Amino acid sequence: MEEVYEKALKLHKEYNGKIEIGLKKDFNEDELKLVYTPGVAQPCKEIVNDKKNIYKYTMKSNTIAVITDGSAVLGLGDIGPEAALPVMEGKCALFKKFGDVNAFPICLNAHEVDEIVNIIKKISVGLGGINLEDISAPRCFEIEEKLKRELNIPIFHDDQHGTAIVVLAFLINALRLTKQEKSNLKIVVNGAGAAGIAIVQLLFEYGFKNIVVCDSKGTINSKRNDLNKYKQKLLSYTNKEDIHGNLKDAIKKADIFIGVSKGNIVTKEMVESMNANPIILAMANPIPEIFPEEAKKAGAYIVGTGRSDFDNQINNVLVFPALFSAILELGITNIDDSIKIKAAEAISSIISDEELSTKYLLPNAFDKRIRETILKKL
Amino acid sequence: MEEVYEKALKLHKEYNGKIEIGLKKDFNEDELKLVYTPGVAQPCKEIVNDKKNIYKYTMKSNTIAVITDGSAVLGLGDIGPEAALPVMEGKCALFKKFGDVNAFPICLNAHEVDEIVNIIKKISVGLGGINLEDISAPRCFEIEEKLKRELNIPIFHDDQHGTAIVVLAFLINALRLTKQEKSNLKIVVNGAGAAGIAIVQLLFEYGFKNIVVCDSKGTINSKRNDLNKYKQKLLSYTNKEDIHGNLKDAIKKADIFIGVSKGNIVTKEMVESMNANPIILAMANPIPEIFPEEAKKAGAYIVGTGRSDFDNQINNVLVFPALFSAILELGITNIDDSIKIKAAEAISSIISDEELSTKYLLPNAFDKRIRETILKKL
Repeated sequence: MEEVYEKALKLHKEYNGKIEIGLKKDFNEDELKLVYTPGVAQPCKEIVNDKKNIYKYTMKSNTIAVITDGSAVLGLGDIGPEAALPVMEGKCALFKKFGDVNAFPICLNAHEVDEIVNIIKKISVGLGGINLEDISAPRCFEIEEKLKRELNIPIFHDDQHGTAIVVLAFLINALRLTKQEKSNLKIVVNGAGAAGIAIVQLLFEYGFKNIVVCDSKGTINSKRNDLNKYKQKLLSYTNKEDIHGNLKDAIKKADIFIGVSKGNIVTKEMVESMNANPIILAMANPIPEIFPEEAKKAGAYIVGTGRSDFDNQINNVLVFPALFSAILELGITNIDDSIKIKAAEAISSIISDEELSTKYLLPNAFDKRIRETILKKL
Repeated sequence: MEEVYEKALKLHKEYNGKIEIGLKKDFNEDELKLVYTPGVAQPCKEIVNDKKNIYKYTMKSNTIAVITDGSAVLGLGDIGPEAALPVMEGKCALFKKFGDVNAFPICLNAHEVDEIVNIIKKISVGLGGINLEDISAPRCFEIEEKLKRELNIPIFHDDQHGTAIVVLAFLINALRLTKQEKSNLKIVVNGAGAAGIAIVQLLFEYGFKNIVVCDSKGTINSKRNDLNKYKQKLLSYTNKEDIHGNLKDAIKKADIFIGVSKGNIVTKEMVESMNANPIILAMANPIPEIFPEEAKKAGAYIVGTGRSDFDNQINNVLVFPALFSAILELGITNIDDSIKIKAAEAISSIISDEELSTKYLLPNAFDKRIRETILKKL
């Protein structure tokens, strides 16, 4: 077993997981009467008088749940809710570490959209927000839409929006280097699952107007009759030239490639067929669409991957803890495109002109400025 | 507003509730790869291989949920799931403080038995146990029964069993003082809700064979045609003399009175009608069935209440954190009567013969011996 896996197993076993419940304030015998009966009756009564007081007197104001059904976990796929727990716990640990957000993992033994929506609605009373996680597309879109409509707390599907925000932040800074105008650039996105669709939507909203999307069947084009409603919607504003064929056809004369599907599918020749000095985001994990060295040899100007062992890791952890922390603090309940764009701009703005280089486009996850910058920008 | 209420409100507001999520182990940049991707994939795979590994590599082994629908909260009644949150959070704080059990509150916006059962089943994947809380009778019995049948994690309804265990512990020590034989004593229990029914069942199981139960309509007797199935079951083994009438009729020549219903309903005369040197547990909150001073004047030998400002507070906090801690550690999944009796015996055994007095029958909640004594006894 690789060393990282062995060490990870050891850590998980030693601590029996990664998160625990803590007391915001330790209490003595006298304070026991305040924390619990009889004193606790008073905040209860205040909430009976006005439900909004739940934000004032309880954990709801800074607590969320990380919820999955285990159907699309990391690169592991549909491994079920039990096996998904280490990832959800890890996510909660990152929420705490990087955003001081109290996040509790809930692994659902349910798979129907309406059942998942119903359960989340019923358990959300004490939650200040919901982070959906590793739920397979297209169900994740429906679940998110329905929850956003039916609950008045922030709903965030990190696989979609966290990824989209960090990709946008990366591209904003890449364009600071290339000094290109975004509306002129051709972007090819490979992958039309949760991440792919959210990336395309956000980039379009931001002003990238020439985008072509590929899924496993090739480009999303007007002749396709196998598109679900989410891909049909994509078609309405992407692939204006109606390019048919596969990724190889689509990538010709593109300026930017964004991969969020499978590894090892972009060749040197394909990079060479792109416009000069292309930008490559090869985010498939653990094997990227093309390795950075190879892409550079083929002329790529900037390459990012999902991996921490290469330059330019593109990692949602830059986004979700800090963003959730900020929206909870500001009482924002709808994380719409303008919020996402502001978050991306905030992250990209942390890198100064002097620091910015083809090897340094995004801050490190441990950079404390991320949280305060997003908070200020929203 | 009374001082305790004012202080409680201040504390809840200052800390925005009482509990938070903590990291079992802080991590640096290198360890981020173990806590999350890529390393986290390994514990996931181990759980795919064998679901039991979830206990080895995740928080499930020492994490429970405190779940309510807000239908019977403290003395406040059916205040709904929002207003119940301060109590649930408080309960979780006590689980942590006195048992080092990680408990997370879930307030359900659902009230039908089957819906509550279904939701709890679906969210229980990552939970090591369920503490049901403040759910009104008789629904709480059905919910508990169904969950015990359908899940293989410990299910505990503290309002029932925590109360029953601490009452039994109190009586065990009361009888050490009076040197009476339990099977000869007549017990009257006032209240046939969650606590009352559980107390009667456990006391009977322990060996108290002469018990009469009263609800708001009087004694539970053979002429009653308004009994739900839980009260019917009580009737099958209580009130052997088939006493009709009300509490005043039932309490005559009783040795022990246990009140878990409403305050101010036991008079001096009623205590005087009991056998000599009776034991009174007047646990209604905040106003007990009879105040200790008055009961003593009427001849009571030992008086306990639910209040911390009198001697002999009878408080479940002596039970639930330590018991849950022990059963999680021992891997016990069914908290049956023998477990409950052992827990009561463990708690009572902490008070030495030298310490034992009519004013000191139970240990203080902060007594660290409770947890280790229960653990050893189970």
